[in-house]
Amino acid sequence: MQNKYLDDHEWQIIESQWNPDNHEGSESLFSIGNGYMGQRANFEENYSGATLQGSYIGGVYYPDKTRVGWWKNGYPEYFAKVLNSVNWIGLKVEADGTDLDLNKCKVANFKRVLDMKQGLLHREFTAQLTSNIKLKISATRLLSMTRKEIGALKYSITPIDCNPKLKITPYLDFDIVNSDSNYDEKFWDSVTENVGSQKAVLQAKTKKLDFQVAAAMRYEFYINNEHFTLYPESSKKEKYAENTFEIQSEAGKTYSTYKYAAIVSTLNIPKNQLISAADNLASEAMKDGFNEIVKEQKQAWAERWTQSDIQIVGDIEAQQAIRFNIFQLSQTYTGEDSRLNIGPKGFTGEKYGGSTYWDTEAYCLPFYMASAGQEVAKNLLVYRYKHLNKAIENAEKLGFKNGAALYPMVTMNGEECHNEWEITFEEIHRNGAIAFAIYNYIRYFGDESYLAEYGLEVLLGISRFWAQRFNYSQAKKKYVMLGVTGPNEYENNVNNNWYTNYIARWTMQYTLEALEIVKTQNPTRFGEISAKANLNAVAERELWQKIIANVHFPRNEELGIYLQQDGFMDKELLQATDLHPSERPINQHWSWDRILRSCFIKQADVLQGMYLFEEHFSKEEILRNYNFYEPKTLHESSLSPCVHVITATYLDKMDEAYDLYLRTARLDLDDYNNEVKEGLHITSMAGTWMSIVEGFAGMRVKGNQLYFNPKLPKGWEKLSFNINFRGALLQFEFSNNGFKMTNNSTEAGSVIVKDEPHSFGAKSSLEKSYL
Amino acid sequence: MQNKYLDDHEWQIIESQWNPDNHEGSESLFSIGNGYMGQRANFEENYSGATLQGSYIGGVYYPDKTRVGWWKNGYPEYFAKVLNSVNWIGLKVEADGTDLDLNKCKVANFKRVLDMKQGLLHREFTAQLTSNIKLKISATRLLSMTRKEIGALKYSITPIDCNPKLKITPYLDFDIVNSDSNYDEKFWDSVTENVGSQKAVLQAKTKKLDFQVAAAMRYEFYINNEHFTLYPESSKKEKYAENTFEIQSEAGKTYSTYKYAAIVSTLNIPKNQLISAADNLASEAMKDGFNEIVKEQKQAWAERWTQSDIQIVGDIEAQQAIRFNIFQLSQTYTGEDSRLNIGPKGFTGEKYGGSTYWDTEAYCLPFYMASAGQEVAKNLLVYRYKHLNKAIENAEKLGFKNGAALYPMVTMNGEECHNEWEITFEEIHRNGAIAFAIYNYIRYFGDESYLAEYGLEVLLGISRFWAQRFNYSQAKKKYVMLGVTGPNEYENNVNNNWYTNYIARWTMQYTLEALEIVKTQNPTRFGEISAKANLNAVAERELWQKIIANVHFPRNEELGIYLQQDGFMDKELLQATDLHPSERPINQHWSWDRILRSCFIKQADVLQGMYLFEEHFSKEEILRNYNFYEPKTLHESSLSPCVHVITATYLDKMDEAYDLYLRTARLDLDDYNNEVKEGLHITSMAGTWMSIVEGFAGMRVKGNQLYFNPKLPKGWEKLSFNINFRGALLQFEFSNNGFKMTNNSTEAGSVIVKDEPHSFGAKSSLEKSYL
Repeated sequence: MQNKYLDDHEWQIIESQWNPDNHEGSESLFSIGNGYMGQRANFEENYSGATLQGSYIGGVYYPDKTRVGWWKNGYPEYFAKVLNSVNWIGLKVEADGTDLDLNKCKVANFKRVLDMKQGLLHREFTAQLTSNIKLKISATRLLSMTRKEIGALKYSITPIDCNPKLKITPYLDFDIVNSDSNYDEKFWDSVTENVGSQKAVLQAKTKKLDFQVAAAMRYEFYINNEHFTLYPESSKKEKYAENTFEIQSEAGKTYSTYKYAAIVSTLNIPKNQLISAADNLASEAMKDGFNEIVKEQKQAWAERWTQSDIQIVGDIEAQQAIRFNIFQLSQTYTGEDSRLNIGPKGFTGEKYGGSTYWDTEAYCLPFYMASAGQEVAKNLLVYRYKHLNKAIENAEKLGFKNGAALYPMVTMNGEECHNEWEITFEEIHRNGAIAFAIYNYIRYFGDESYLAEYGLEVLLGISRFWAQRFNYSQAKKKYVMLGVTGPNEYENNVNNNWYTNYIARWTMQYTLEALEIVKTQNPTRFGEISAKANLNAVAERELWQKIIANVHFPRNEELGIYLQQDGFMDKELLQATDLHPSERPINQHWSWDRILRSCFIKQADVLQGMYLFEEHFSKEEILRNYNFYEPKTLHESSLSPCVHVITATYLDKMDEAYDLYLRTARLDLDDYNNEVKEGLHITSMAGTWMSIVEGFAGMRVKGNQLYFNPKLPKGWEKLSFNINFRGALLQFEFSNNGFKMTNNSTEAGSVIVKDEPHSFGAKSSLEKSYL
Repeated sequence: MQNKYLDDHEWQIIESQWNPDNHEGSESLFSIGNGYMGQRANFEENYSGATLQGSYIGGVYYPDKTRVGWWKNGYPEYFAKVLNSVNWIGLKVEADGTDLDLNKCKVANFKRVLDMKQGLLHREFTAQLTSNIKLKISATRLLSMTRKEIGALKYSITPIDCNPKLKITPYLDFDIVNSDSNYDEKFWDSVTENVGSQKAVLQAKTKKLDFQVAAAMRYEFYINNEHFTLYPESSKKEKYAENTFEIQSEAGKTYSTYKYAAIVSTLNIPKNQLISAADNLASEAMKDGFNEIVKEQKQAWAERWTQSDIQIVGDIEAQQAIRFNIFQLSQTYTGEDSRLNIGPKGFTGEKYGGSTYWDTEAYCLPFYMASAGQEVAKNLLVYRYKHLNKAIENAEKLGFKNGAALYPMVTMNGEECHNEWEITFEEIHRNGAIAFAIYNYIRYFGDESYLAEYGLEVLLGISRFWAQRFNYSQAKKKYVMLGVTGPNEYENNVNNNWYTNYIARWTMQYTLEALEIVKTQNPTRFGEISAKANLNAVAERELWQKIIANVHFPRNEELGIYLQQDGFMDKELLQATDLHPSERPINQHWSWDRILRSCFIKQADVLQGMYLFEEHFSKEEILRNYNFYEPKTLHESSLSPCVHVITATYLDKMDEAYDLYLRTARLDLDDYNNEVKEGLHITSMAGTWMSIVEGFAGMRVKGNQLYFNPKLPKGWEKLSFNINFRGALLQFEFSNNGFKMTNNSTEAGSVIVKDEPHSFGAKSSLEKSYL
């Protein structure tokens, strides 16, 4: 059930009424981040109501001891979790001795605004503490896109018709818990607390792995825009430091605290320099001032939007939603650091450990390729390259040999974290997505040199895994793959999941091609890789070719469809419409065995394969499979609808496509699954982008050529977006009558729209009506 | 790897050397019990070495909060665990201020003897504490078979060549931990501690469910068999009470403490009477004295052995082993209380929660039917009858309707405890074993009235479950059962496990027969059941009959075998001999996915079905299946070998049968799996009994008639045992040349041996040579 409490707006997310029941959800929705760190929209002042405090630093994680009911051989010993880190926003407010706490006062004129155009979070309200004390509060916050280690905020208090004594306490707090700690352990230990006048710095370290983080704060105080000199009291305790100052206020005057925090970690800076680094950065930020930092922020976001904006004219909800999705994706991953990746909840919550899933390759890569460019996309791929040795170790643990690589289902540093056998050991199609991403990257950027540089080694490891994971069935006289979990996690331990078999065979084929390409283009590097990977090309190639020629693909000839797995047709073949709404989502209402033996599909599975390999199948074949599987698909994974949107659009099922689109695009904004308080579905947001660009705009890249086949949903007057393609920033605008495009680059090129080729010159525009 | 450190003996288990490494194993092996409670062979005196303290009361359990990695809908909230209870044996010894602790002194002449004939545990040794102090210790302990609440021990100290001051401290201790506590919680809270001179009583309650237990102790002291009056100091703390007394000893004299403990619980006695009940029982025990209690014990065990003994002449290891197994089974369950059952580890350890598994019906029932008689066997069945409503609730939780019953995989009170979806929700064949036990009981005792009384209601619930659990496959035009785990737990979530489909179909057939029987024999009761179960016999019967006629049974025609499940032949078909010994057991060396997709079988599965329904198959068919499955069976469950022993014997594969027999019979004595310290494999001990009686003696009951087809292993000169059959106690002795039998009852009868019928009169013997 949808919970729509936010206002529609093209560029902003607006909450215009205070309702504590929505607060935790809003804490997720109004999260800010800059790729380096993230902060939920927790309040600066004390709040005694329900809240999920969250402040996260990319790449700083904690290996929490695994919790299982029944240990199975091969389970990982720990689950790496995104670490809830220092509270840098904290600022306590008392007026005449009464704490400002929205849970304990009357709140009026509440407004919370996430300004996506400028990358700012703003909040204002009037709080009535007692009959005499009324305060107007206005707070603006950002995590700087240009100064990655810097968070800054302005917090203003205006007494209304009263003159309370204000006591203001800016603080830093490292005494933080992870709400998902397996054994209720706190993960941070104190290193240092220093506190002075108008400044403080804390250093803490993780109980395992010895990540160290230092956070410094500086602040200044203004009355009605005039700087005011303070003589605060400072105090500290373990993992905590604060300043406190009091001021006799006057009604109507505005008392503003500007707080600057710098957060640095041993990911980038040696331990013994953390304190000084944090201190210097915070001090510099204060010197430059809040307004300057805001100015930089606006400029940085303007540049980003130039790269990545999508405009939808005629559908304000869709417009707001896609911008929200792009905004959150851009806050989560900025692509400078190949040690980082995209957690399913980004920096907006703890769930799923903040680690890397196949979501990155299967859903996120296209967005970053088109909107953030080649270096960013490449870093996402290199992340996996760096983990190749761990993937080989992981496969060895499971009994595979000879350099076979199984990438983890969930990881922070390349090691497997997940501990459900049916996922951890069996949901191996993730390996296929990682191989496909290499192909996809090369297809998009035309950068075949990536194979020699990084790609081939990864492909080799994965193909070796597939070759060992298939076994020959004497009964079928085919190679089969037993005991897997496909993308549809509502099946476990099935035989011959069509998608997995398909992407496995494809990987082996592509690896054989890649071997040839590298051998031809870069014989030196080929020699190196051969030596390193102990490559006996002839024998391995023969086995692979035998497998490639003889993979079993379950199929129903009568219906002309591929079967999700062996035996699928033995199920009771119901449709989603046969379910009573009270049973949905079935994963909250049905026992697991019932889900498993039902025909219901959590997320695209056969259709996921047909989406990835569209050109391998006729439209009729895709239609037959879509007609069989779509009615059985419940889309109870946030990653599911986008694939169906794209396929439905391809099949001209526009109403279905649009319904699914709206659900995925506003999944979090309208909190369809009543879970937004746990964090946002960051990776599925990339699916929303795919739904528009690959779905409604029908973008494809084939043979170094960009194709579009736009089909706008009803009511959409115009759909415009920018695409980075082969170094050029291309602007497209599609309407029902025609399209415009602008090429801002200095190279000419061509594009195929609705099967018509159109050439364009350097620095030129093009406008065409459809016939 | 076997660890054989015990001496061979017909009637005793003897450990004749002190080796701390074996101690925890011996604590399991030398356990004593009386069906009401049990006690591991922990030392009375302090012991600072590795030990697993264990004292258990049947039916007193703790619902420990479930621990899972990933919660799945339908999981039970708690796992009922056998509660480690009061330490009643405790008796600290100091000599001249030095603690007697076998971990801290030189030990000589150590001997630990479990006297199975008499039900006594004896231990003696000489301990050298310091250069001057040498003590000879002798300790005898029992849990009374006649006074269920009473444990008694005699602990004698004889100083050798020294005259130390002895300080002796008998105590009771309820400050006990379960080593398998999920969250390191202690499960007992204090209610009362009372302590006086030569007596103490504690009452404690469980933190959940409010089980209350009181333990009282009395003791007396003798010097060289002369009673000695003590003036001890008493003290107590929470959950603990002790007496301490000192005596100046003289070399060569023997100082004996006789300690009597009574343990009562709210299972049988109201809360407010526990203290006095315990106190009275302990006082009475002391009044009657240790020697009297020992005398009663010897007599009680003599009677039990008359019922249940098996003699093997010519194979001392086999002889010792079978008596050990019978002894432990008889200690675990005595059948007076239908609220109790047989935990896989009985009262000898914590693992598996001490709860009830399908082991009871599938493996234990035959032993108790033949050796303990009808009332005991009936109580095992009534246990499940009493849980029928909970089984119906359990099925409802999983989405079943209309009185369908799914019995739990693991339970203490009828509610499911287990929390692995592949077991909890899918290993549903347990329902079949519960139905089969009803049939088996009636077949054995000829007691068809059981159907009307209890059986039919249970059968109805189970058959309704099966009818809903099958679904019609349009593809196969058959009823299929998807997503199950068969007896072979090295497969999960398979389709059409042959065993499960077979026993499910059989249950439905048998239920239809049972309905007719009750309708004819007891129309009144039939009316009651019909009303209670809302029985619409016609409609249900039609569906059941349709299913019965159309169940899919996977089969390989070429080999003439049934397939364990759909798709089994797609596996790489290896044999156990293809495995390197370092890989065994595979569950300790292979990852779970690898186990699942291998062809290796943990325990009898298809062969389990052919064992239960032997008469449904031709010998050739059983042979073909045995030849296919036995080489793939790893017997990594202790429950597996017995079925193969019986089938191998039936198929005249005597060497295979004997090898497997010895492994199962001495599994714990020789600690094949290096796990005996966790407790004994109580339920698999019943399988050992089956191996002999149904295997080597070939006993069957068909058409109210007892059949034997004896085939003795090499070296066995004679095999004798007693069988309760239809109220008569029959003694059989088989040799290679012929057999003898004695009928002690007043009814004549007949028996068929090697296909030859033999009549026997009342109170008569029979001796026949084979032709």
